[in-house]
Amino acid sequence: RSTVRQLVEHRLFQPIVIAIIFLNGLIIVTETYFIGNQLLLVLDKIIVWIFVIELVVKMIGLGFRGYFSDRWNWFDFGIVIGSLVFYSTPFVSVLRLIRVLRLIRMIPAIPALRRIIDSLMKSVPALSGILGLCILIFSIYAIIGTTFFSEVLPAEFFGTFHNSLFTLMQVVTFESWASQVARPIINEVPWAWVYFVTFIIIGALVILNLVVAVILSYLGQ
Amino acid sequence: RSTVRQLVEHRLFQPIVIAIIFLNGLIIVTETYFIGNQLLLVLDKIIVWIFVIELVVKMIGLGFRGYFSDRWNWFDFGIVIGSLVFYSTPFVSVLRLIRVLRLIRMIPAIPALRRIIDSLMKSVPALSGILGLCILIFSIYAIIGTTFFSEVLPAEFFGTFHNSLFTLMQVVTFESWASQVARPIINEVPWAWVYFVTFIIIGALVILNLVVAVILSYLGQ
Amino acid sequence: RSTVRQLVEHRLFQPIVIAIIFLNGLIIVTETYFIGNQLLLVLDKIIVWIFVIELVVKMIGLGFRGYFSDRWNWFDFGIVIGSLVFYSTPFVSVLRLIRVLRLIRMIPAIPALRRIIDSLMKSVPALSGILGLCILIFSIYAIIGTTFFSEVLPAEFFGTFHNSLFTLMQVVTFESWASQVARPIINEVPWAWVYFVTFIIIGALVILNLVVAVILSYLGQ
Amino acid sequence: RSTVRQLVEHRLFQPIVIAIIFLNGLIIVTETYFIGNQLLLVLDKIIVWIFVIELVVKMIGLGFRGYFSDRWNWFDFGIVIGSLVFYSTPFVSVLRLIRVLRLIRMIPAIPALRRIIDSLMKSVPALSGILGLCILIFSIYAIIGTTFFSEVLPAEFFGTFHNSLFTLMQVVTFESWASQVARPIINEVPWAWVYFVTFIIIGALVILNLVVAVILSYLGQ
Ligand code: NA
Ligand code: NA
Repeated sequence: RSTVRQLVEHRLFQPIVIAIIFLNGLIIVTETYFIGNQLLLVLDKIIVWIFVIELVVKMIGLGFRGYFSDRWNWFDFGIVIGSLVFYSTPFVSVLRLIRVLRLIRMIPAIPALRRIIDSLMKSVPALSGILGLCILIFSIYAIIGTTFFSEVLPAEFFGTFHNSLFTLMQVVTFESWASQVARPIINEVPWAWVYFVTFIIIGALVILNLVVAVILSYLGQ
Repeated sequence: RSTVRQLVEHRLFQPIVIAIIFLNGLIIVTETYFIGNQLLLVLDKIIVWIFVIELVVKMIGLGFRGYFSDRWNWFDFGIVIGSLVFYSTPFVSVLRLIRVLRLIRMIPAIPALRRIIDSLMKSVPALSGILGLCILIFSIYAIIGTTFFSEVLPAEFFGTFHNSLFTLMQVVTFESWASQVARPIINEVPWAWVYFVTFIIIGALVILNLVVAVILSYLGQ
Repeated sequence: RSTVRQLVEHRLFQPIVIAIIFLNGLIIVTETYFIGNQLLLVLDKIIVWIFVIELVVKMIGLGFRGYFSDRWNWFDFGIVIGSLVFYSTPFVSVLRLIRVLRLIRMIPAIPALRRIIDSLMKSVPALSGILGLCILIFSIYAIIGTTFFSEVLPAEFFGTFHNSLFTLMQVVTFESWASQVARPIINEVPWAWVYFVTFIIIGALVILNLVVAVILSYLGQ
Repeated sequence: RSTVRQLVEHRLFQPIVIAIIFLNGLIIVTETYFIGNQLLLVLDKIIVWIFVIELVVKMIGLGFRGYFSDRWNWFDFGIVIGSLVFYSTPFVSVLRLIRVLRLIRMIPAIPALRRIIDSLMKSVPALSGILGLCILIFSIYAIIGTTFFSEVLPAEFFGTFHNSLFTLMQVVTFESWASQVARPIINEVPWAWVYFVTFIIIGALVILNLVVAVILSYLGQ
């Protein structure tokens, strides 16, 4: 076991793992150009088995408890086991989705990426209030939109509560909010400008608050 | 009265109120899918009466003066009384609007949300100058737009002063400002590019100032 | 003269001036709804003369030198004299433009607005480098665009150097940059994606620098 | 040699170089209006030779080693030699591209611009993690997009991996992401809203992180 441990803690172990994940990414991208290429699929299968071996080696080297004491390893474990389990799914596109998700292993493997996600996670508690406020505002405006505009535009805009949420997502990113959404509605329901202008101002203020909260949370770290 | 007070200050009182508001939200959302469902409407009516009871209990527990010493309670009072008064309006959509506004009670009920609104309110004085400048700039450009472009595009763009304000709101969010607004106008009135380019630069500068003012006001708090 | 001075420094002098400018704004806005209304035009003429009287009173009160020692008074002087000179222009729309510009007097009249402009002016030196860089980058990309894409889209996009500058302004605000500008060009000139992607990344970086420079310049003040 | 050195370090040497680059810019811009004008082309040729002379003078004055010890001089050297080598290319548009790139010499010539690029370069290491994360996220979403949406829209959107990358670039700048990209796809593949909403939220968070990292890196400098 101590030999395995030395292997896991060898200074080349991690770079080789990163290189294999990177190679895996290249293979998956190449496969989108040469769909169904057998060589690429075989290489991909080999890489899954390398990942399984890496997982077993790491588990033995760090011990069962040592391995699972790091949250990122849980994540890693889930992805590798998932790849293995779903490998023989009959749906080609589901297979590809599983294959792509394996690339997320890049995040725990590279310290710089892990650190970004970690500090993002640390700022989540500071943001929970603002996220709650976002959900509340979106819900209120979505219900109002569904009530008053469901018959003005095609149903994909304000036809149902969830369609309204999507449309509000479009409006809050300022994407064609006037040309595609607000102007046609205002033509039919003149007071609708109040709905859109207040939503945009409140939405922009809340997002501004989110940005400031993130900056302050980072300054505090 | 002290028994009522103990009730109001019980550690489960507020969570239960929040849960009921949350349940109310779910009912209102569900009602957009099953319009006119009697069960949901009855549940909603029950919740209004629970809110009335909560209000009365709180008023007795904290005393009339104690209750109204908190500004948020004024807000709460207005919403609950409004719900009660407008409950039997013949207009279904007005009824729904009143019903939705009840969800805003979430803000005073949850401390994290209340704090966001409070600190937003505190930064308003620091922003009053910039808001005044915004109104001035929008007014000047709206008058110029109405004067020179009212006959170039359909009246909904620069036909009247208030239409121009809405169009400037669209331009300042960069929404189709060139493709839908500026380019067709420049085709007819070549110097109009000065109007749009200066408005966008000034608008962006003022918004940048607004952002900086908010950040500084939060750093100062 | 000291009586005049007392008048100018009276605590009601400035608020009355602000009120008149505000009233002037209301009159000008109302005039866009009732075009050519004689009452409004007469009121507007009266206000110009009030402004002239205010200017003379202030000049006498503060002395010729004292008056012109404040830069904002130069600005004020220019606008009032301009209003007077151009009052009898035969072009109605030029007349309205002059009339609207009078509203800018709001800025020197209200201290909160004056302070914003002053601190904006103070941060200009810190921004001059970035503005120069902006002009350089826009020029380089405009020349390249005019050279290679002038015949791909209608001339209003990349037909001439100044049209290219306007199109780049549209691209840098992310306004329909892909749907209206980049995609049709890439269909004809496949390598054009390099042009747009580099411009957007460089443009976003420079604007980010501008924002940071403004924040730092405000933190330093 | 010391005379040449005095010349190079003369306080007018650099301003004259800047003036010539600026003049060069004017000539190149003018040439886009008068294509093929002989006078302008001759002036341009003269300026290239002035640049060559400047380069030789600087090299002699600072010594071969002293000259190349400044990285910006490498850059300068490359551009001037490139201009010379490609001067007689038969492709007019390539010629113009080389000519335009000469304007980038403005950056090392003007200290204010050089400083911006220098401090931008200094913040690159702090950003490398976030840039890596960007590439990872873009790749994962591009592969998923190519797998599931390649046949829903025309091939220019999600037809190949590189087309998907360009489309994601469009989506992350919020450019017609709903009206042109997401809505037509959701009509065919209802679950696609998950793809777009998660990409926009993750993308916005990563860009927010980028902005914060830049601000912190500047505050640290
Ligand atoms: Na946009
Ligand atoms: Na758009």
